[in-house]
Amino acid sequence: MSKKNAFYAQSGGVTAVINASACGVIETARQNRDRIGKVYAGRNGIIGALREDLIDTSKESKAAIRGLLNTPSGAFGSCRHKLKSLEDNRAEYERLIEVFKAHNIGYFFYNGGGDSADTCLKVSQLSESMGYPLQAIHVPKTIDNDLPLTDNCPGFGSVAKYVAVSTMEAAMDVESMCETSTKVFILEVMGRHAGWIAAAAGLAGESRDEAPHIILFPEIPFDHDKFLARVQRTVKRCGYCVVVASEGAQYKDGRFLAESGLKDAFGHSQLGGLAPFLAALVKDELGYKYHWAVADYLQRSARHIASQTDVDQAYALGRAAVEFALRGDNAVMPCIVRGKGKRYSWSIGEARLQDVANVEKKMPRNYITRDGFGITEAAREYLAPLVAGEAYPPYRNGLPQYVRLKNVAVPRKLKKRFEV
Amino acid sequence: MSKKNAFYAQSGGVTAVINASACGVIETARQNRDRIGKVYAGRNGIIGALREDLIDTSKESKAAIRGLLNTPSGAFGSCRHKLKSLEDNRAEYERLIEVFKAHNIGYFFYNGGGDSADTCLKVSQLSESMGYPLQAIHVPKTIDNDLPLTDNCPGFGSVAKYVAVSTMEAAMDVESMCETSTKVFILEVMGRHAGWIAAAAGLAGESRDEAPHIILFPEIPFDHDKFLARVQRTVKRCGYCVVVASEGAQYKDGRFLAESGLKDAFGHSQLGGLAPFLAALVKDELGYKYHWAVADYLQRSARHIASQTDVDQAYALGRAAVEFALRGDNAVMPCIVRGKGKRYSWSIGEARLQDVANVEKKMPRNYITRDGFGITEAAREYLAPLVAGEAYPPYRNGLPQYVRLKNVAVPRKLKKRFEV
Repeated sequence: MSKKNAFYAQSGGVTAVINASACGVIETARQNRDRIGKVYAGRNGIIGALREDLIDTSKESKAAIRGLLNTPSGAFGSCRHKLKSLEDNRAEYERLIEVFKAHNIGYFFYNGGGDSADTCLKVSQLSESMGYPLQAIHVPKTIDNDLPLTDNCPGFGSVAKYVAVSTMEAAMDVESMCETSTKVFILEVMGRHAGWIAAAAGLAGESRDEAPHIILFPEIPFDHDKFLARVQRTVKRCGYCVVVASEGAQYKDGRFLAESGLKDAFGHSQLGGLAPFLAALVKDELGYKYHWAVADYLQRSARHIASQTDVDQAYALGRAAVEFALRGDNAVMPCIVRGKGKRYSWSIGEARLQDVANVEKKMPRNYITRDGFGITEAAREYLAPLVAGEAYPPYRNGLPQYVRLKNVAVPRKLKKRFEV
Repeated sequence: MSKKNAFYAQSGGVTAVINASACGVIETARQNRDRIGKVYAGRNGIIGALREDLIDTSKESKAAIRGLLNTPSGAFGSCRHKLKSLEDNRAEYERLIEVFKAHNIGYFFYNGGGDSADTCLKVSQLSESMGYPLQAIHVPKTIDNDLPLTDNCPGFGSVAKYVAVSTMEAAMDVESMCETSTKVFILEVMGRHAGWIAAAAGLAGESRDEAPHIILFPEIPFDHDKFLARVQRTVKRCGYCVVVASEGAQYKDGRFLAESGLKDAFGHSQLGGLAPFLAALVKDELGYKYHWAVADYLQRSARHIASQTDVDQAYALGRAAVEFALRGDNAVMPCIVRGKGKRYSWSIGEARLQDVANVEKKMPRNYITRDGFGITEAAREYLAPLVAGEAYPPYRNGLPQYVRLKNVAVPRKLKKRFEV
């Protein structure tokens, strides 16, 4: 039985386009039935493999798999489960190999961020030493856009588009009413360690007077006085002020603003909530009427406003992962390479997982204006093509037609259960 | 000089489609140049008339006016300025008439909610008694959908679509990760007095196990124990629970949940924030991992996901307002009349302002399930056609092409200034 099956799993926070990568993997595998058997997906990510809870994707129709291209979130379920180091938890890695062996799996496609790239590398190494070599290919995905060696990460372009469009729309709303109503609007967006998502809001305006007037990045320490002075100056000049704040905005000492001591009536720390914190600051110190919004999961699941570039790249990376496997590659990751020309172009490159794992790519300082509150022309040039193109899902009766898979389980072969 | 000019103003909270009504008013007036002179818009709503700060819309190109159809927020500015009663502030009404007279204005088109319908009626009455009769026509608009006599209000259908789509997308996100991550997701939406917007979230799912699992309406008193029991039962049954809460959710005694005593580090009441309040409740009492989002202005400005039905109706009501004026009507409001057939249809009707002003339309009890946490089939039938159709704006470089008008001021004719 030389034709091996493939295993595919989604890892970590899901995105508007991670299923487009799944679609790329499964469709490409199906086009190579002579060399790849079935594609089994982990139910809820890698814990599906540990529990031997596999999904048989061959039970899904061609149309259902195609529908993944338009469907947000993780169609097979994802998880937050970081495998510990080999020394600390060899049992988990051995279990994975055992399950893969039982199901004749020869290809391991892992769709995730930095942590999963690391897991993917270790699985490849261990499988070799255990005498059951696997080809482990990592498919990049993260809205945080913080993976190295790839020009950008699938999932980011669509969040960026959502944030830029939402900022533009909300700013127009505030502007049209600021004469008698809200003067300061604060939008909190994701990005705990890197300000890529907040930066994307900068695409909503071009000149100093256009919103967003202030962006707060995790990379720039928050300065209470400087922030309030800028808010006040902006309101005086423009009549209103739009602030987009990265949830990771922090003080010089690394404390997050969002953990700045809000207490509820029982004295519990109020968890989350950078936007209301900033709003209270503005209200107390400047007295302006404010509104705030927290986009939270809405931003990363907003397939209805996905970027066509992002969808195309997510699919292409899934496809490339299978192609890499077919040509015998191992412990690698397909990545996006930006063309050198003035007009945006991209192609698929290949990175070695040992160079990817556990490296975090922050915003370069030259993408942030000197005052720390905006994005530079260099950032605009980088970001703009990533939000280009509209990839609308099909609608029925006014609502998107997202697919729901059957997710039929593969019969278990192992007697031993494994607790995760 | 028998050909009178028209005055148009936007009032109160803006919407994704109020400019579509403006487009209907201006285009229809332009098509009747033989009978209507120029259309002057109030800068920032009615205060523009009080200040004699009028915008000459004849300076805008045909393309710019057409662009209003696709542009959210208030293109001429809106305001929150409720004219007091005639007895309390006769001066404001008299000033309006004075300004209208100075600019040969014979038609008063006021685009707003219940308060502005009342103002519109009073202006009509007073102008008559002051010997300068105006035809005052109200153009309905409110995301709250709480005006009487019209089947629905322009602005609502688009918010409803935004909320239904966002709920669907975020719920898929939570579902795909609930095995190891967030169990409870709370989305706070607008609607201080009526639960129409929260109800629209109900379109995201059809069966009991589909999100949203819980909707909190202002119409149904909040029951702490019942709420938590439902959250817990849902998590046990489905693995996760999605809650959509109207900002107007309240206790039996009328206190808003959002004012339930959160204090910041300085002891100030933390303003706003029903979602974080509910999240803290879930965390403290049930221990579940949660996330929350507050859509705030994003929901009412989201022209990118506007309902085609809503855009069509908003335009048609603006057009009808001018047509009513041309046939000599006064103190009326064009409204949406739903056809009787099984298949949704609508036409324009006419309501007298004396029947509209200051009446608030709440959700009928039979639109809310007996347990108070969901919507009934009757509600679905009412809501579904209002979100139908996608009315995408044009895009350039990945971002919507919203118009920005020149908003050229009409030269002042009055010497007297008026302080607002």
